Amino acid sequence: MPPVTEPNASTLPSNWGRWGADDELGTLNLITDEVRARAVTEARTGRWVPLGMPVDPTSMLGGPFAPPAPPSSPVQQALLYTGTPPMGMAELLIFNPHHPALTHLDAFAHMPVDGLVYPGRPLTEAVTAGGVLHGSTTAFAEGLLTRGVLLDLAPGGRLPSAHPITAADLDAAEQRSGVHVEPGDALVVRSGWTFSWDGDTPTPGMTMDAVTWMRRRDVSLYAGDVGDTFPPMDPEVPMPLHMVGLTRLGMPLIDGVQVEELAAVCAELDRYAFLFTVAPPRLRGATGVPVNPLAIF
Amino acid sequence: MPPVTEPNASTLPSNWGRWGADDELGTLNLITDEVRARAVTEARTGRWVPLGMPVDPTSMLGGPFAPPAPPSSPVQQALLYTGTPPMGMAELLIFNPHHPALTHLDAFAHMPVDGLVYPGRPLTEAVTAGGVLHGSTTAFAEGLLTRGVLLDLAPGGRLPSAHPITAADLDAAEQRSGVHVEPGDALVVRSGWTFSWDGDTPTPGMTMDAVTWMRRRDVSLYAGDVGDTFPPMDPEVPMPLHMVGLTRLGMPLIDGVQVEELAAVCAELDRYAFLFTVAPPRLRGATGVPVNPLAIF
Amino acid sequence: MPPVTEPNASTLPSNWGRWGADDELGTLNLITDEVRARAVTEARTGRWVPLGMPVDPTSMLGGPFAPPAPPSSPVQQALLYTGTPPMGMAELLIFNPHHPALTHLDAFAHMPVDGLVYPGRPLTEAVTAGGVLHGSTTAFAEGLLTRGVLLDLAPGGRLPSAHPITAADLDAAEQRSGVHVEPGDALVVRSGWTFSWDGDTPTPGMTMDAVTWMRRRDVSLYAGDVGDTFPPMDPEVPMPLHMVGLTRLGMPLIDGVQVEELAAVCAELDRYAFLFTVAPPRLRGATGVPVNPLAIF
Amino acid sequence: MPPVTEPNASTLPSNWGRWGADDELGTLNLITDEVRARAVTEARTGRWVPLGMPVDPTSMLGGPFAPPAPPSSPVQQALLYTGTPPMGMAELLIFNPHHPALTHLDAFAHMPVDGLVYPGRPLTEAVTAGGVLHGSTTAFAEGLLTRGVLLDLAPGGRLPSAHPITAADLDAAEQRSGVHVEPGDALVVRSGWTFSWDGDTPTPGMTMDAVTWMRRRDVSLYAGDVGDTFPPMDPEVPMPLHMVGLTRLGMPLIDGVQVEELAAVCAELDRYAFLFTVAPPRLRGATGVPVNPLAIF
Repeated sequence: MPPVTEPNASTLPSNWGRWGADDELGTLNLITDEVRARAVTEARTGRWVPLGMPVDPTSMLGGPFAPPAPPSSPVQQALLYTGTPPMGMAELLIFNPHHPALTHLDAFAHMPVDGLVYPGRPLTEAVTAGGVLHGSTTAFAEGLLTRGVLLDLAPGGRLPSAHPITAADLDAAEQRSGVHVEPGDALVVRSGWTFSWDGDTPTPGMTMDAVTWMRRRDVSLYAGDVGDTFPPMDPEVPMPLHMVGLTRLGMPLIDGVQVEELAAVCAELDRYAFLFTVAPPRLRGATGVPVNPLAIF
Repeated sequence: MPPVTEPNASTLPSNWGRWGADDELGTLNLITDEVRARAVTEARTGRWVPLGMPVDPTSMLGGPFAPPAPPSSPVQQALLYTGTPPMGMAELLIFNPHHPALTHLDAFAHMPVDGLVYPGRPLTEAVTAGGVLHGSTTAFAEGLLTRGVLLDLAPGGRLPSAHPITAADLDAAEQRSGVHVEPGDALVVRSGWTFSWDGDTPTPGMTMDAVTWMRRRDVSLYAGDVGDTFPPMDPEVPMPLHMVGLTRLGMPLIDGVQVEELAAVCAELDRYAFLFTVAPPRLRGATGVPVNPLAIF
Repeated sequence: MPPVTEPNASTLPSNWGRWGADDELGTLNLITDEVRARAVTEARTGRWVPLGMPVDPTSMLGGPFAPPAPPSSPVQQALLYTGTPPMGMAELLIFNPHHPALTHLDAFAHMPVDGLVYPGRPLTEAVTAGGVLHGSTTAFAEGLLTRGVLLDLAPGGRLPSAHPITAADLDAAEQRSGVHVEPGDALVVRSGWTFSWDGDTPTPGMTMDAVTWMRRRDVSLYAGDVGDTFPPMDPEVPMPLHMVGLTRLGMPLIDGVQVEELAAVCAELDRYAFLFTVAPPRLRGATGVPVNPLAIF
Repeated sequence: MPPVTEPNASTLPSNWGRWGADDELGTLNLITDEVRARAVTEARTGRWVPLGMPVDPTSMLGGPFAPPAPPSSPVQQALLYTGTPPMGMAELLIFNPHHPALTHLDAFAHMPVDGLVYPGRPLTEAVTAGGVLHGSTTAFAEGLLTRGVLLDLAPGGRLPSAHPITAADLDAAEQRSGVHVEPGDALVVRSGWTFSWDGDTPTPGMTMDAVTWMRRRDVSLYAGDVGDTFPPMDPEVPMPLHMVGLTRLGMPLIDGVQVEELAAVCAELDRYAFLFTVAPPRLRGATGVPVNPLAIF
């Protein structure tokens, strides 16, 4: 794969410098006390929907003690010997945080563009052989809460294959559901394309136009069942969500959320805003971390 | 270590059979819609406190590329090669979920007593060499929310070394803070003993009397900076929280929460109840999982 | 799976006590200076044949950076990030030493029978949660050399499915090839059944009669493309090679050797004895270790 | 760390092209049938010396089940649960093959210089995110044998700190022991500096002059208790053994051999040549692999 470079970098939307040269939070800075206060007013009944994909770990034991592993899993499990009889049951869990079948948060250090990560820091300073020094999961370690808004781009169905998602699609979803994305909100997007190992049918994906809309609305965090297409839909602007949204806007991404149940609940309640909480393991210094966001009504 | 057995099992409090012989939720059954509705009324301003201990991973790289590892860490990180220049930064994360320096949820399968796990299922059926079939983290995979209550047993200080925590301690804390633990609440306990590798000073620990109090109050989930002492304080009733609370009551435990900041906020606001959310990675089939509970005010 | 127990233990051949109650070497004690001196006389031309199965590791990277893993592999590889540009290429290698597709040495601690390992030591003393204290790969850590003898049980073909291998089969192979297994020799056996994931066709396997022959001849080490059948051929004497050969005789086993090329070379040279060397990583304290034995002519 | 580059590359000794542009064996090509026939004549009594450093694995279990890990180990072990009672004892072993406390073979892909690996192949073609396609341990997978020669540079003692080892040192050792390094021989070097975590005292190291001597003598493989110094002794020619010996000569390196016992045996027998065998796990596609070379007399 060729190195990732962006044409026309100077014309792309960016938040580099907006919160200083050492900033580690990016658009999470937009989640102010006022935004949080607004968010908790959405939590009225305690009904909730998890947005993570369920994960069944693969046993690392292998034959002759256990059947061979399934094709691929984001988590491997090694159940441990603790004595005979066992003192307690325990295991090692090996997570592959950026695995496509695992709902996870991308930290800024995940995606260098032209050798830089948000907010313009050289990758070689941000990540060393021994660890991640800048732009890591430290930004999410304390957990976060804000208002979440679901934009369902294809209610009851799914977007066409290879559909280029634009600002118009997002505006239309807002109008359908009578909700307006405010600064600091987490944007949850449903395309109707759930995760599949089938790589033959091109999925829809975000365009530069849609990412520019997110910048205009000052979205604090993106979570969708759809992201960038790979390979890129438009070679002129490859991977708009990761290379511009994550790296230039400093907007954290939650890859691979599961939103079918959320869409059903929103439709049932006719409410598309909710309290949105994210509380992964309090792990600092990683490029990504598995997460199960909650939508609380 | 000798096998774990309980004397006088017939007189110990138990929930075995209360929710059926196949139950996987234990006291999480107590978190009803009403409990959740009460819980969200505590979320008023959006201020929040994370209860997980921060974790810095240890690099698995080792020399000659990086310095040797620190003594022990619950998470190991292997930053991965993704090409030159790198396509993206990624890693493997190896979690040791029951590590004492990691805030984690204990699933029922973690603690067999007399060869049985909650609610009386033989360990050999619950856990096989290839995976955990009963009493696993599947119970927490969707996340949960309820009302949390902090009982601070030693405001501004810490309990004496080796203090046996009793029902009287819990009652006294309730009275001091003017809060009452209701059925379905998560009980958060502060002893003032934060995690340390120093194993020489005996910590305080829960007695059978305290666990019986939790059963009486129908606590749904226990989270504390204190648990059982090891070795046991009372050989007649070893590990009351794990062997009775987890295994007989089916009350999930969050080991190793960090509550200093929570205690300060509760004192500042003079409020000891809050919305309590738990949303670990949506991992099924494990005996434990790292978690960062949130207390939301 | 039910616990492994042996009927009629008192009548089974055994070396327990032959070299003392603390012995860690078992039949490796039979490899005397004289045996080694005899062995090196077989090394005449420097032609050699490796007996390990080739192993291609599985990448742990996974999507989106690499294709999903194949069904199962005994070795997983994580190529590591060492900087940009890379300082050097390095990796982690996760071995599953007892994997059926990996040629490996079984240490005595691998197989407890009735709670005991060779030479009658309780498993609970030999193996603790923190490591293997007795009967580990420490026995092989310095490497070993002796004379090896190939007994080809089915020249040019393979044994019938489910064939019970007896002393008569071993005697017949000796006579065909004009070689005699002497005390201290390593016994290499070819059945013509190479490793396959197909578990439907029952393989041949060693009977108690064959293991008794090995005891009578004082074989120091067993290496074969055939071992015990699983499930057992004869429920009365399950797993004779592992439960009697390894545990009672203290005869180390090399599981899963590849001997097709060896058999061809032996036939070409009309020589069935050779210098046999085993030099795995000098790893102590494990229950098994991958190995590539060499047959040197 | 700055990228590794070589000044004056055009004047450095090299074997690029000597065995073709696709060669994977480098100086192992020098081990001909004649070399092997000469080698086995050295195996006369069967006495042998292992050259690997012993390794005790670190338990991955961690507290509360086991004590914290020691500072650093090249191998981590996770003993696995296989049932109650256990069906057999097994584990996972995580090797860090290039760890300084582990005797290991460096494959050519380990060391890119100016973006190239032996014999001039771009690193980006040789190593991809998913695996090593050229210059891997596949070259050693079948094991190897040749004549080994020990050059003891400081009999009975050790070289001075920071001593720059030159051709004159190697010549002097040859004369002392009455042995001559022939084409295809494995060169084993003793400096008297055994592995230590103490990084404060500068070790001796090979100079460009010594590596040029190895090229002149057509050494097939280098194994020493001494290698390159890090940081480099001479910034003009950094890491001569790794950057020129491994990458330009295509001469495989065994890092971290232990030769004290070997030196004692050679002195006792007054013989500095022996049969030298190397048989790591038959692992293909890695950048390094742990090994325990044997010197057989």
